[in-house]
Amino acid sequence: MNIEEFVREGHLTYMPNVAVDCAIFGFHHNTLKILLLKWKNLDGWSLPGGYMKRTEEAEEAARRLLSERTGLEKIFLQQYYTFTGIDRTKIPGFDLDSFGKSIGVEIESNHWLRQRVVCVGYYALVEYSKVKHPRADSFTEVCSWRSIDDLPPLLFDHKEMIEMAVRTLRLQLNFQPVGLNLLPQKFTMNELQKLYETLLGCPLDRGNFRKKMLGTGILRKTGERPTGKAHKAPHLYSFNKQEYVRSLKSGMKFS
Amino acid sequence: MNIEEFVREGHLTYMPNVAVDCAIFGFHHNTLKILLLKWKNLDGWSLPGGYMKRTEEAEEAARRLLSERTGLEKIFLQQYYTFTGIDRTKIPGFDLDSFGKSIGVEIESNHWLRQRVVCVGYYALVEYSKVKHPRADSFTEVCSWRSIDDLPPLLFDHKEMIEMAVRTLRLQLNFQPVGLNLLPQKFTMNELQKLYETLLGCPLDRGNFRKKMLGTGILRKTGERPTGKAHKAPHLYSFNKQEYVRSLKSGMKFS
Repeated sequence: MNIEEFVREGHLTYMPNVAVDCAIFGFHHNTLKILLLKWKNLDGWSLPGGYMKRTEEAEEAARRLLSERTGLEKIFLQQYYTFTGIDRTKIPGFDLDSFGKSIGVEIESNHWLRQRVVCVGYYALVEYSKVKHPRADSFTEVCSWRSIDDLPPLLFDHKEMIEMAVRTLRLQLNFQPVGLNLLPQKFTMNELQKLYETLLGCPLDRGNFRKKMLGTGILRKTGERPTGKAHKAPHLYSFNKQEYVRSLKSGMKFS
Repeated sequence: MNIEEFVREGHLTYMPNVAVDCAIFGFHHNTLKILLLKWKNLDGWSLPGGYMKRTEEAEEAARRLLSERTGLEKIFLQQYYTFTGIDRTKIPGFDLDSFGKSIGVEIESNHWLRQRVVCVGYYALVEYSKVKHPRADSFTEVCSWRSIDDLPPLLFDHKEMIEMAVRTLRLQLNFQPVGLNLLPQKFTMNELQKLYETLLGCPLDRGNFRKKMLGTGILRKTGERPTGKAHKAPHLYSFNKQEYVRSLKSGMKFS
């Protein structure tokens, strides 16, 4: 469906009042990143998202959008909050009349795109290096990773959405497989600690962290060290998935 | 708005695709209870809920519905999940045609009540004794407390909604003021332990629980004992609210 068809007949395929947005997190160079889209002709970015199809449940819509933007399937995905602010989709500096004219479609006063939209928020955890070529959609021109600590100007209520996603991630650190999904298969103790420090928003004592993590039994020493480093390079670990999942069930106590 | 007006013109006031349901929990006689509505002419119960007004956000709708059913304001309320199953509102044995006839309104094939509805789920924690006269709505004939361990037949996807609400409550026990909102102002250590055991779904060691709870600093001994009991009656405690809130921020470790 091109933009013109979407504007004319999108309401036949999509529910005009219900959308889904995805906060897709990755971890790279010891920084928490999020995948954002830069809108065409607007100085603003947003989370990847879109209307829910009439034939879809929210999670199906989220998986479709994730796959369209990242090419990835079977991503770790959690619904975290539904945003229902009355004017949440209004964009300053963007009006539907001029937009309609620019694509040759009249957008009447009762047009489906003028309706109020509630949005089901999902967060996804991906291994950064697996997202090779993030793709923009019809309304946007760039899809790229941005650091959580240095976000560009955000459209709609997406600043609030991101803040709440990060807060949720932090609260769920002890009972969702956050590390397992954000880190590469092999990682150093230092990388693991940085991930926890980033999510918890505070520094952790190195010795204590190491001792606690090893004590949980969820780590396996691979016996390898990063290549291309001096022989004093740190050990590489991987997760013992079975033990990790078991620990989560009883609620891990890292912090 | 009576039922006939609601059926004819409800879509002018409400969003046809978006509803809110509330899992309202209370704790009584050492049992977790939930407030349910028995539907007229149907062998089925549901959570209190309803369509979201066009002028409301989801939380406002939830507070309105809560107040209509319980008479209470300023209740502890948390959004926990949005349910988007495609056929989630179909009720076996209930068809809109006969319902329309019974109230003298024809419900056409494109009538707003036939549209798909997504539902934002909230859970609420109330002090059981404060809900004096729970009230049914236009579609229901009874509003009463039911025990979580012995639920009546449920309509729509409300069984799943309740299960997920209980699971959420359990996960959030360490960072939401669950005890503060479910227990009366003064309670015994035994009542507190029963609440934790009910939510965690497992027995806890009495001595350890007592020690841990007193160790958190969130309890205050009132110096009183339940009236009308022998002089060996147990102590009554109350929460030190400031300390409770502080503990929650750092994540309490009860379990």
